[in-house]
Amino acid sequence: MSSTISDQLQNLGVTTHRPSNRNVDQMREVRITRNFTKHAEGSVLVEFGDTKVICTASVERGVPRFLRGSGSGWVTAEYGMLPRATGSRNGREASRGKQGGRTVEIQRLIGRSLRACLDLKKLGENTITIDCDVIQADGGTRTASISGAYVALRDAISFLKKDKHGAMKGDPIKFGLAAVSVGVYKGEAVLDLDYAEDSDAETDMNVIMTDKGGFIEVQGTAEGEPYSEDELNAMLALAKKGIAEISELQRQVLAD
Amino acid sequence: MSSTISDQLQNLGVTTHRPSNRNVDQMREVRITRNFTKHAEGSVLVEFGDTKVICTASVERGVPRFLRGSGSGWVTAEYGMLPRATGSRNGREASRGKQGGRTVEIQRLIGRSLRACLDLKKLGENTITIDCDVIQADGGTRTASISGAYVALRDAISFLKKDKHGAMKGDPIKFGLAAVSVGVYKGEAVLDLDYAEDSDAETDMNVIMTDKGGFIEVQGTAEGEPYSEDELNAMLALAKKGIAEISELQRQVLAD
Amino acid sequence: MSSTISDQLQNLGVTTHRPSNRNVDQMREVRITRNFTKHAEGSVLVEFGDTKVICTASVERGVPRFLRGSGSGWVTAEYGMLPRATGSRNGREASRGKQGGRTVEIQRLIGRSLRACLDLKKLGENTITIDCDVIQADGGTRTASISGAYVALRDAISFLKKDKHGAMKGDPIKFGLAAVSVGVYKGEAVLDLDYAEDSDAETDMNVIMTDKGGFIEVQGTAEGEPYSEDELNAMLALAKKGIAEISELQRQVLAD
Amino acid sequence: MSSTISDQLQNLGVTTHRPSNRNVDQMREVRITRNFTKHAEGSVLVEFGDTKVICTASVERGVPRFLRGSGSGWVTAEYGMLPRATGSRNGREASRGKQGGRTVEIQRLIGRSLRACLDLKKLGENTITIDCDVIQADGGTRTASISGAYVALRDAISFLKKDKHGAMKGDPIKFGLAAVSVGVYKGEAVLDLDYAEDSDAETDMNVIMTDKGGFIEVQGTAEGEPYSEDELNAMLALAKKGIAEISELQRQVLAD
Amino acid sequence: MSSTISDQLQNLGVTTHRPSNRNVDQMREVRITRNFTKHAEGSVLVEFGDTKVICTASVERGVPRFLRGSGSGWVTAEYGMLPRATGSRNGREASRGKQGGRTVEIQRLIGRSLRACLDLKKLGENTITIDCDVIQADGGTRTASISGAYVALRDAISFLKKDKHGAMKGDPIKFGLAAVSVGVYKGEAVLDLDYAEDSDAETDMNVIMTDKGGFIEVQGTAEGEPYSEDELNAMLALAKKGIAEISELQRQVLAD
Amino acid sequence: MSSTISDQLQNLGVTTHRPSNRNVDQMREVRITRNFTKHAEGSVLVEFGDTKVICTASVERGVPRFLRGSGSGWVTAEYGMLPRATGSRNGREASRGKQGGRTVEIQRLIGRSLRACLDLKKLGENTITIDCDVIQADGGTRTASISGAYVALRDAISFLKKDKHGAMKGDPIKFGLAAVSVGVYKGEAVLDLDYAEDSDAETDMNVIMTDKGGFIEVQGTAEGEPYSEDELNAMLALAKKGIAEISELQRQVLAD
Repeated sequence: MSSTISDQLQNLGVTTHRPSNRNVDQMREVRITRNFTKHAEGSVLVEFGDTKVICTASVERGVPRFLRGSGSGWVTAEYGMLPRATGSRNGREASRGKQGGRTVEIQRLIGRSLRACLDLKKLGENTITIDCDVIQADGGTRTASISGAYVALRDAISFLKKDKHGAMKGDPIKFGLAAVSVGVYKGEAVLDLDYAEDSDAETDMNVIMTDKGGFIEVQGTAEGEPYSEDELNAMLALAKKGIAEISELQRQVLAD
Repeated sequence: MSSTISDQLQNLGVTTHRPSNRNVDQMREVRITRNFTKHAEGSVLVEFGDTKVICTASVERGVPRFLRGSGSGWVTAEYGMLPRATGSRNGREASRGKQGGRTVEIQRLIGRSLRACLDLKKLGENTITIDCDVIQADGGTRTASISGAYVALRDAISFLKKDKHGAMKGDPIKFGLAAVSVGVYKGEAVLDLDYAEDSDAETDMNVIMTDKGGFIEVQGTAEGEPYSEDELNAMLALAKKGIAEISELQRQVLAD
Repeated sequence: MSSTISDQLQNLGVTTHRPSNRNVDQMREVRITRNFTKHAEGSVLVEFGDTKVICTASVERGVPRFLRGSGSGWVTAEYGMLPRATGSRNGREASRGKQGGRTVEIQRLIGRSLRACLDLKKLGENTITIDCDVIQADGGTRTASISGAYVALRDAISFLKKDKHGAMKGDPIKFGLAAVSVGVYKGEAVLDLDYAEDSDAETDMNVIMTDKGGFIEVQGTAEGEPYSEDELNAMLALAKKGIAEISELQRQVLAD
Repeated sequence: MSSTISDQLQNLGVTTHRPSNRNVDQMREVRITRNFTKHAEGSVLVEFGDTKVICTASVERGVPRFLRGSGSGWVTAEYGMLPRATGSRNGREASRGKQGGRTVEIQRLIGRSLRACLDLKKLGENTITIDCDVIQADGGTRTASISGAYVALRDAISFLKKDKHGAMKGDPIKFGLAAVSVGVYKGEAVLDLDYAEDSDAETDMNVIMTDKGGFIEVQGTAEGEPYSEDELNAMLALAKKGIAEISELQRQVLAD
Repeated sequence: MSSTISDQLQNLGVTTHRPSNRNVDQMREVRITRNFTKHAEGSVLVEFGDTKVICTASVERGVPRFLRGSGSGWVTAEYGMLPRATGSRNGREASRGKQGGRTVEIQRLIGRSLRACLDLKKLGENTITIDCDVIQADGGTRTASISGAYVALRDAISFLKKDKHGAMKGDPIKFGLAAVSVGVYKGEAVLDLDYAEDSDAETDMNVIMTDKGGFIEVQGTAEGEPYSEDELNAMLALAKKGIAEISELQRQVLAD
Repeated sequence: MSSTISDQLQNLGVTTHRPSNRNVDQMREVRITRNFTKHAEGSVLVEFGDTKVICTASVERGVPRFLRGSGSGWVTAEYGMLPRATGSRNGREASRGKQGGRTVEIQRLIGRSLRACLDLKKLGENTITIDCDVIQADGGTRTASISGAYVALRDAISFLKKDKHGAMKGDPIKFGLAAVSVGVYKGEAVLDLDYAEDSDAETDMNVIMTDKGGFIEVQGTAEGEPYSEDELNAMLALAKKGIAEISELQRQVLAD
């Protein structure tokens, strides 16, 4: 990164201009707790700083109608926020009778990403439903959700492996999956935006990558001014670094 | 209680016929954690054994239309379950576009009970919304919700007391509130049913009482055979005992 | 009942403090008209004073999915109010696209109570749907509905008995069923609240019992102050008296 | 009418080919009962033979947004059927969360017709809502509804006349209104179809007229074969006769 | 037509009082373009002056549940308007979550009319869905829709004729179908109302006829004053003339 | 681009491996027709080959509640597809009562992008609603929609400029906006995917840029395998080329 402001600040001994005092390429503390609740085949509490999401993976025999008889499995995701996960209360979607556009957009992204890391043929005619429920929000809920959901998905796959009557045909997981948000904040690319940054960023980008460095999804939105190719590249470089760290943590947690 | 089966079993050194091995008049371990999440004016994690509910209380200025200009405040409640809070996944109400009948029934009960313990006139034109979200279910979610919601409500009231511009006119809380389920299980009245008992009970009764021993709500349903007046009285006696214990814990937690 | 106010009033020759001038233990006139409409297998107009409800029982072959192949039948109930059954018009639920919480709560109560008085195994794979539609409301619509629905249900069962191709295996009715509301009004327990009392009562309790004196459901709600155990017992005593009278009338009507 | 079949039958002493044995130009018995329920400003039970509809008219101060400040009033109508008003049970629209297409079509017709007989300017900024709820159906529910609704509307107007604070400016009623169905049944035009005829008719026509002979609405639908101009004229002639009889009954009933 | 106003005006050399300067019996220019879009089995752009509607006919194997195994086919219709087809924007029905009453009424009319011109038995167990989407509205959208839909339906039937595996048993079309609106405008019957006339007409009548002169549907509504039998007859005469012209155009277009 | 397959094919005189025979960097023919319908303030038919979308811009005074009094304007977008815009019919969203997730996602993208090219403060308290309705789909409907919507938006802004009573404060348009899809198809990056390519592509990326070369939104999704940074860069290079061409056409069309 060639941000002169940041360079000069660091030369002056000033670490960072971020509200959280993090370096531009510094993640918040990430914690992943497996077996968080007792009923689901996979259940994870994922925390990116103050952002906390419960990710469960539920296994059901059978697949939706459009896949019946295909021998192929299915993974789908739903996303929700407790009404008071945020600074002011949001109306409960169940009581308004409708999921909001943001919710729909996020759960489609989660489902699409998780399906990309699986060989659905090997999953057999099983359906895994991922539920990501945000109990406390502080920016980056969708990328935290994906990073946690991957671990819950792995636990659900392990459950299926032990099931002799399950229809699974070998390990369906093709690669690991993690996600992080990056952005341009006060003219500089930064990693893992928290709410204070997110609500004030010029650009917000969500990056989802495999643990082998391939891109699954890149979504970069100019919130204020258009962004340049240099800024795009700076953000992608930060995303790679962050995702490598999250992938490493996922590996450790799954090794336990 | 004059249940001869239980008496004989105890004489024989057999403590109990309950799946959890509890005595008929024994509560599960109850834990109440204040300030569980950071945004809400009141935020409580309440646990009755493996039943875990996040109760938040959100304060908003103003009241629903039917109360505007009345000088009176309002308290309302919403209830939800994470889809995989239970043994098998329940469809997400937000995505079905409709709250189920059971949900509607429970949230009306919670709201009604909390309003009963307040002088809404003293609350002034403020609205407090209670959200009870079950993250893990093992029987008794509605009574755990009420017992936790009361503590969250107290924290929200304390928040309003400190607010000089709030419209509150003195302490609106008239008395403490706690709730517990009782039932007839294998012919005997038992306190605080867990899921194993609840799904097999002859009678299921939810009792909501003040910390001074007054009844706020009694709802007793014959699931199998009709129940007798003796059984009703045995259940009420157990409920009183349980509620006294919960009330005492609420007092301790709020004193911290 | 030991209500000294009422006793003293009666000693003074004042019969009652109730708006309707009834004694505290006096029901409104109850009328039950069978075969009220011509299409349904059971069709009853039930009147508790000015409260008028049409209760129909509709028989259909087959059961909901969760019971298919079980050999067991099903009974379910729906409740509605004509928009102008009440003093001011209520929006039509069909046009708002949603049943209100009160409606949902009541129809669940009706269905649950009726199922409790049947051996669903003996009903065979038939479904009986009870519709309770209030054409004029003056308090106690849910208890009037249950008392009338039981008679309609009996007529539907008689219809099934005559049907050679029906799947019924013996008489599924285990006992009779009736319901009444009681409450604490101006400090005194009273039987069968009308609207004038209901809207002003300290406590409102709905009691559903078998004709043999067993409890099916007790729902007692403090509308103002908490109620005491004495008040609870006084209300239950009145409920028993009222239910005995309704049960007797049901017997006479069904004997015709 | 020149129906040779009918003529020949009559010559042979056979009165009619109609299932009900009525003459082709014979109405079913029509009964109109005012003050059928006690709360509404206008409440009528209208019966065309076995078709029974409760029509209420509810007065509210104020008008919908698009008329505020215009000085003009509004009349609107809603239509419903009890689920078991018909031979087999129809799902309750409130529980399906949606009014069916037939319901929407009928309530628009009722509202449009009633508005046509009023000078809405003279009504002042009042809204009258007409509810037509079919408690028993045997053909012709929409025309019975309109014929009854007109009487309920008249009673609501009389209520407003007595109201000193009402905004009404003179009698808004321009003329009387009645409706009847006619059709072509077994090759012959017949008056006031019952269900047996309606479900088997070649053509079904609903005619709404003023008591002075003007047309408000004509809706004629070929159910089987197209109909000719002669058949159209034959149906209109029968409709005039029927409407004259209903208008006369309305006059008598309103004179009481 | 004996309209003296029009006669006198014409004697004076004044052609017409219509905003469009058309004669009372003059249609707008009607254009029918087949194969308007490329995917549907039938796809027509129909224009009545500035009213423009895309009518597509989509063929699917199979029929709705109530017809399965009957050997009979089904035709149904849906109607929509682009939000800005009109002078001011109308909320999109998909986003409001509900089709309006007018939409429901129109699509039922279109479907009913098209079914009337077919022998559904000959269609075999195929379903044809007609979509009429108004891209620009200037009065008469429902009658233009029906006139265009008939041509799209014919193209879909031709598609089925060529399909060896289709279930069709001979040509199901019994006769041609066209529709036009007529009305009473400034005291005189006029043919094919545009928006300027429609919004100001005393009476509005939609007439749907076969190409052999039979009536399929007549719907005449008094918007202002009641209409007389003479006016009704004058409108029907104009409708016949208009429909003959549209039928002739349909024949030419289908002959290409 | 270094795709050896394509290079070798071109050396052999084979232009391309694309189903449409286009070069990898070749757009379909793009056509933009202004004033396509007559009522809207901006109305454009945009065609990318066989993909055809009607884009209208509707101006309304006032803004949504959250902006009232802010002096700022608002732009929002809605997206729809005629049911038979596609190869097989899709159920009409208005009749299913719900917009699908894909629709919600697309209309949020369109609205967000258009807002990014405006200074909403200068727009004043006006709302512009963009409707993008696909009448024929052949891939790339969202990028065609955005490219057309920008032109419609410009026409609506011109309308507001002429309006003396409008609240606009100078020209709110900050830069031009165009969008195009790119992807990896059979191992090679290609520009402007049609349906045949889109349904078979390894990666699908939508790029939205200003006419000055800034990024507004980049959304790249791996449909099959993850994509590499090289592939990402190859796609972005193609997107720049395509957007430059569309921007130039927009300039010409707006200059007329």
